[in-house]
Amino acid sequence: MTLFVDMDEVIADTYGAHVEWYNKDFNAALTLEECHGKEVWQMVPEKHQQSVRLHATRPGFFRTLDPIANSREVLKELNNKYEVFIASAAMQFPNSLQEKSDWLDEHFPFIHWKNRILCGEKHILKGDVLIDDRSYNLQRFTGERPLLFTSPHNVHTNGFERAMDWEDIAAKFL
Amino acid sequence: MTLFVDMDEVIADTYGAHVEWYNKDFNAALTLEECHGKEVWQMVPEKHQQSVRLHATRPGFFRTLDPIANSREVLKELNNKYEVFIASAAMQFPNSLQEKSDWLDEHFPFIHWKNRILCGEKHILKGDVLIDDRSYNLQRFTGERPLLFTSPHNVHTNGFERAMDWEDIAAKFL
Repeated sequence: MTLFVDMDEVIADTYGAHVEWYNKDFNAALTLEECHGKEVWQMVPEKHQQSVRLHATRPGFFRTLDPIANSREVLKELNNKYEVFIASAAMQFPNSLQEKSDWLDEHFPFIHWKNRILCGEKHILKGDVLIDDRSYNLQRFTGERPLLFTSPHNVHTNGFERAMDWEDIAAKFL
Repeated sequence: MTLFVDMDEVIADTYGAHVEWYNKDFNAALTLEECHGKEVWQMVPEKHQQSVRLHATRPGFFRTLDPIANSREVLKELNNKYEVFIASAAMQFPNSLQEKSDWLDEHFPFIHWKNRILCGEKHILKGDVLIDDRSYNLQRFTGERPLLFTSPHNVHTNGFERAMDWEDIAAKFL
């Protein structure tokens, strides 16, 4: 069985970093809880939205993300049992490419470079499972089991089998 | 129809650059013709082989490659007619990732970032055609038409439909 696993908001806490960088830049106190159902940029005053949208172009943003809770432990076990690929739609941000590779080297060294994919769209992936936080990626995936990984922005999204967290993924596949 | 097109030695003249960088580094006069059927590193004295193998880790190597003859013109027309993706097995060299993206911006700006893939292995690609110079990529591709693009190193490789050059690809698909 071949599993594709997204990076941002599945194994890397991009959402949390957006909130943290915004709070630091503007001396604000936005919390994850109040963001539920929205993107971070939608939660800030209009004059600050562009700044949040540009986090992804700032050096170090992707390199310093925290891993999502339990992602390392569970992915390591999945990787022993299945053919696991990390698949990140990263090409929009060329500055992120090496940062993402270096970040995987640090936090997920057991994912061989042969099993890493940086792409634009994910409907060209051929495999069985896609674990992703974005419904538009899951919609076009042709494998048998698209799985929506819960992130603050997608809590109100319906129509997909959901993985609440990495313990939930362990329960489904291990 | 979905076509995947490799970068190195298909649209980017990596082989020629290996010869050029080797000649410059060691004041040598290796020619493309004498390399036929071999990798460049196999054609140099043993004490210089590691240097050639490390070209791929040197800043600027991938950024300064020449486009392969007619690749831009033909790919632009293919891109108007089919779903075209550039797919490069680049993850072994993290330093190459942004260089490859920047190189595409310069020479193939009509290939949208959504249609760019940097990966490790290519058997996870779902589509119809793969144009690649490496037989091991073509062997595992599950699409209907794997095409071996002629490069000095593969002139003796058999068992695949061959594309001699970009004019040949135009004749097949346009």
